[in-house]
Amino acid sequence: MINKDMKFFIVGLGLLGGAYAKALKKNGYTVYAADINEDSIEYALENNIIDEGAVSDYNSLIEKADVIISGLYPTAMIEWLKENQKYFKKGCIITDVSGVKKGIADKVQGFLSEDFEFISSHPMAGKEVSGVRNSDENIFKIANFIITPTEKNTSEGIKFARELGEILGFRNITQLSLEEHDKMIGFVSQLTHVIAVSLMNTNDNTHLVEYTGDSFRDLTRIAKINEVLWSELFLLNKEILVKEIDDFAAELNNFREKLVNEDVEGMKKLFIQSTERRKLFDRKDVKNRK
Amino acid sequence: MINKDMKFFIVGLGLLGGAYAKALKKNGYTVYAADINEDSIEYALENNIIDEGAVSDYNSLIEKADVIISGLYPTAMIEWLKENQKYFKKGCIITDVSGVKKGIADKVQGFLSEDFEFISSHPMAGKEVSGVRNSDENIFKIANFIITPTEKNTSEGIKFARELGEILGFRNITQLSLEEHDKMIGFVSQLTHVIAVSLMNTNDNTHLVEYTGDSFRDLTRIAKINEVLWSELFLLNKEILVKEIDDFAAELNNFREKLVNEDVEGMKKLFIQSTERRKLFDRKDVKNRK
Repeated sequence: MINKDMKFFIVGLGLLGGAYAKALKKNGYTVYAADINEDSIEYALENNIIDEGAVSDYNSLIEKADVIISGLYPTAMIEWLKENQKYFKKGCIITDVSGVKKGIADKVQGFLSEDFEFISSHPMAGKEVSGVRNSDENIFKIANFIITPTEKNTSEGIKFARELGEILGFRNITQLSLEEHDKMIGFVSQLTHVIAVSLMNTNDNTHLVEYTGDSFRDLTRIAKINEVLWSELFLLNKEILVKEIDDFAAELNNFREKLVNEDVEGMKKLFIQSTERRKLFDRKDVKNRK
Repeated sequence: MINKDMKFFIVGLGLLGGAYAKALKKNGYTVYAADINEDSIEYALENNIIDEGAVSDYNSLIEKADVIISGLYPTAMIEWLKENQKYFKKGCIITDVSGVKKGIADKVQGFLSEDFEFISSHPMAGKEVSGVRNSDENIFKIANFIITPTEKNTSEGIKFARELGEILGFRNITQLSLEEHDKMIGFVSQLTHVIAVSLMNTNDNTHLVEYTGDSFRDLTRIAKINEVLWSELFLLNKEILVKEIDDFAAELNNFREKLVNEDVEGMKKLFIQSTERRKLFDRKDVKNRK
């Protein structure tokens, strides 16, 4: 489905958009890009990460593209697609990198012309840094690529997304409904970020820095967070995330009660259960990283 | 203060006791050991980790020791010291590895004969495995050694502990009161374990294993936990830990409220604060690991 003559247009040349560009260029594809940041485009041109790029007046580049990839934040993407779909080539395919799907993918499919297909996907890869200068296509090697089709998508569109995930070099490519995706991401990614942020904000304990070991550092690594992107992602998944926070808070309180009541056997059971469950995550990890 | 003729007796040849033995032997000291596990003693003798060792009837080894190191769990240590202090050489010095200090160090100093000095210390090093076979003295290279003297300790005793920390190869050696130590450990170590365990126990989410990335794995690594040791440590530090859990739960609820109320500016402030604070922990880490 994807062939070497196809031309890719990436809007939003940040950490992910930049990594997509690098991987596509490495595989011999033509890559155009647009970004609001002049420096990002200049850097990408100088380093041969893209073939052509611009911060404005890039209609002619859009018109040549067979594939349009949005590396924008979800709400910015919606605005951009609304304004620019008039330039899209008939039959072109569009995908994104949004971390939340319900309310995004279905909304886009609602206003997009039937001349194009929007197939949503989520590259579950990131870093605590941003921008094309920090982009690295190697982060995909240990990451998941999740395709989230709706009933509006064709089997051709899904096949395209799968091939794109392969070209980008993802370890694992799977398919979920919008709802399944957002529920999964609410627990695996969003709740963990809420926990890390809240732990870091629990009193000012920065005077304890000299006593911290790997446990604390690992647990709070993701407390360094892009406040604009993540507040947007959290709002888009509000109901699911609030439920996840409540479930976690209830479990935390369950532990607290056992401690207060000096219920040693109860605490031990919780430790044994967490140890058993966590082992499953280990094995998979080791296997996949071989 | 510590000289090459001194003989060390380690009771409890587990992960930490074993690492102490390896480091001391490597530095040319004579090391005796006792453990309830025959296999541990045999393994240590075969691998030249100790000079002599036994599972019982080891009075003659204790009597030769200038330094006694307890690698036992806190409550087991108290029983062992009560039973065995009659064999201690006059003037010998005793230290431990206990992760909680109040109610342990002061209790030992209460019943120990004035012929000996007990100077408590805490090697802040560990792994998600146990036993002498997994012991590794290299874990001390990036770890903190905390000396927790009381008014019963002499400056000689404190000097001894500092030299021991240096011989063992700790990155950083500091001194705290029993109370300061337990408050610090309640936040930096115990609360983080409660969080990891509770997250792992929040519903059975093991079907999500294929979607988890480094964030979730890092955050839950310490959910693999020795249930006997940690339930003991938590009970010993109950009041402090309950307070830390409550502070964290309040901060978690603070975040939840902002999300429910769609207070984007409030969420952003929390993200910015956590990012700023976490950066302090990064810099120190990088500097220390050079």
